[in-house]
Amino acid sequence: MSKLIYRRRQSARPAPHAGEPTYGPLTAEELQLAVRNHSMPLEALREDITPPGLHYVLTHFDIPHIDAGSWHLRIGGAVERSLELSLAALKKDPAISVPVTLECAGNGRSLLKPRPLSQPWTLEAVGTAVWTGVPLAYLLAQARVEPEAVEIVFTGLDEGIQGGVRQQYARSLPIAEALRADVVLAYKMNGSELPPQHGYPLRLVVPGWYGMTSVKWLQSIQVVTVPFHGFQQSVAYRYQHTADDAGAPVSRIRIRSLMLPPGIPDFYTRRRILSRGPVMLRGRAWSGEGAVTGVDVGIDGKWAPAQLEKAAGAFAWRGWSFPWVADPGEHELACRATDATGAVQPLEQHWNYQGMGNNVVQRVKVRVE
Amino acid sequence: MSKLIYRRRQSARPAPHAGEPTYGPLTAEELQLAVRNHSMPLEALREDITPPGLHYVLTHFDIPHIDAGSWHLRIGGAVERSLELSLAALKKDPAISVPVTLECAGNGRSLLKPRPLSQPWTLEAVGTAVWTGVPLAYLLAQARVEPEAVEIVFTGLDEGIQGGVRQQYARSLPIAEALRADVVLAYKMNGSELPPQHGYPLRLVVPGWYGMTSVKWLQSIQVVTVPFHGFQQSVAYRYQHTADDAGAPVSRIRIRSLMLPPGIPDFYTRRRILSRGPVMLRGRAWSGEGAVTGVDVGIDGKWAPAQLEKAAGAFAWRGWSFPWVADPGEHELACRATDATGAVQPLEQHWNYQGMGNNVVQRVKVRVE
Repeated sequence: MSKLIYRRRQSARPAPHAGEPTYGPLTAEELQLAVRNHSMPLEALREDITPPGLHYVLTHFDIPHIDAGSWHLRIGGAVERSLELSLAALKKDPAISVPVTLECAGNGRSLLKPRPLSQPWTLEAVGTAVWTGVPLAYLLAQARVEPEAVEIVFTGLDEGIQGGVRQQYARSLPIAEALRADVVLAYKMNGSELPPQHGYPLRLVVPGWYGMTSVKWLQSIQVVTVPFHGFQQSVAYRYQHTADDAGAPVSRIRIRSLMLPPGIPDFYTRRRILSRGPVMLRGRAWSGEGAVTGVDVGIDGKWAPAQLEKAAGAFAWRGWSFPWVADPGEHELACRATDATGAVQPLEQHWNYQGMGNNVVQRVKVRVE
Repeated sequence: MSKLIYRRRQSARPAPHAGEPTYGPLTAEELQLAVRNHSMPLEALREDITPPGLHYVLTHFDIPHIDAGSWHLRIGGAVERSLELSLAALKKDPAISVPVTLECAGNGRSLLKPRPLSQPWTLEAVGTAVWTGVPLAYLLAQARVEPEAVEIVFTGLDEGIQGGVRQQYARSLPIAEALRADVVLAYKMNGSELPPQHGYPLRLVVPGWYGMTSVKWLQSIQVVTVPFHGFQQSVAYRYQHTADDAGAPVSRIRIRSLMLPPGIPDFYTRRRILSRGPVMLRGRAWSGEGAVTGVDVGIDGKWAPAQLEKAAGAFAWRGWSFPWVADPGEHELACRATDATGAVQPLEQHWNYQGMGNNVVQRVKVRVE
């Protein structure tokens, strides 16, 4: 057995995470990541647009310090005309504003058994913002992409080591995705200057895709004629069964819904305490694969459809509500969304090696008094 | 032994935390608190004023939803003239702006052995902001405090259960502290409307005191003639040796310094990698008990004084810098501040039952290549 494991490790590609998934206790390193990175407290589900400072944040390395006065964006590679643009120049270009729900691909990871060793999200690595900036397609049209181009590589100024590999954070997008009209190079978030942790002075925002796609602190955009095999593309962010399995790329956000926990919490356990009588259960649902078409709410395992609100945008979450008459005792509440492709949230989590795309149904325990 | 423990528990006051301190692994409840509440990533030490969304946040219960249009602040109790003020009325009063470093009293708790079961902070529960609003003393002068008054009780709109006790968050201040010219009822943070998680529409800010004093989501200010014994005053936020020890109240922020980790990080371990040669080590130091008078930097246990910058305010942190020529190999860096009272950070942590006021020296491991 140990020989087999030894051979496996010898043959393995660079590791996305810091060891094999574990049934063991949370490590000091995971705690450090949990306090460094920020979740959205679930009560922020009240708002269609997540208030400042409550949107989730995951930073692989450090938040870089960038002097926007000397910063330039370089667009090059397989283009007829390379560009180098200052922030002032970008702000003179036509701008669009797009409401987008972003979610970390690793959301829910800490609930998996065994648990991949990385940022130990529970359920709250999500947020919705209005991103304002220049359509990527506008700049690509100016640069004139060569016909043999297959992908576009976005590189950020954040630098560090992951899986033993020194790197600047970089991800690619297929040409067809990059040319979508709603893909934006954003310099504003909710009408204000980008905060440092969200990519100041400029970030890519790709509606519908998990957050790793929306590269922050953009330094360069390179058009390439062969697929990109950087660490964050070929090693991290894969749906894998084992360490050796090359896996499938993580891309669009899977259908998910969350509930605003009703009543009041216990400080430590976060268990909810609720008064008997009528209460409106509320939450939001989103999918990067198709419009949200339904949300069912489960009360002690009995499901019924919720009322849907209008979505804030094609790739922004959709509010839902469900009236409940709470009777005294212990109850388990749940919500489960479906999208236009027919995808529905699983009742039990599907495990994968990196803990990606966990969209299991949320369960909220309440005591009604 | 089990009998002794049983007797102790019988006689115990309500418990501040969810059980006895433990040497065991991090619990699911602690992880949930760690992802819910927000630390300041250490790279934010670059800035004198913490950027939006990076200031630490601890919310005991939920962030309440408050309609500022119908919200009023009530000032009453042992006063000649009770007041009820709208936000619009408060904004017409004279305003002050005060730069303040706030730190959670439980900062560093997760490093203690045994570890109290509560929010498992590492070292980053801190931040500095400019708070703008009405001086509390101005409103108290209008209300005319009765001569027999001893304390002022501040109650927030956040509600929940802690230690088995249902409560709205409430804390008191002695009259003399409340009348200080720099104690502010703030409706702006860094020039913008208070974000929901920082107490919208109004919070108390008491410069120099640990964060639990600066009550958020203020609903009422009551002048009292006997000392307040609410849960957050008499049970939580005490320096105790054991569960049964009534302990001493937590009040002002103890001397502390932190270093901006140099070089680049490893994603998972956060270990630093640095290039050989000259590097300027930087950080900030603060104390609620007296001005910061010195910071020493330790390189592999050898200490030397850092250069101090001007403090941003009487109770705002003070920048420091220290030039180092990094030679290849593994190193341990540390920083240790002293204040005007002669207080200096301990090299080894002083344990207490609730994990309060941990101001142990930070140690940063770096590999120089």
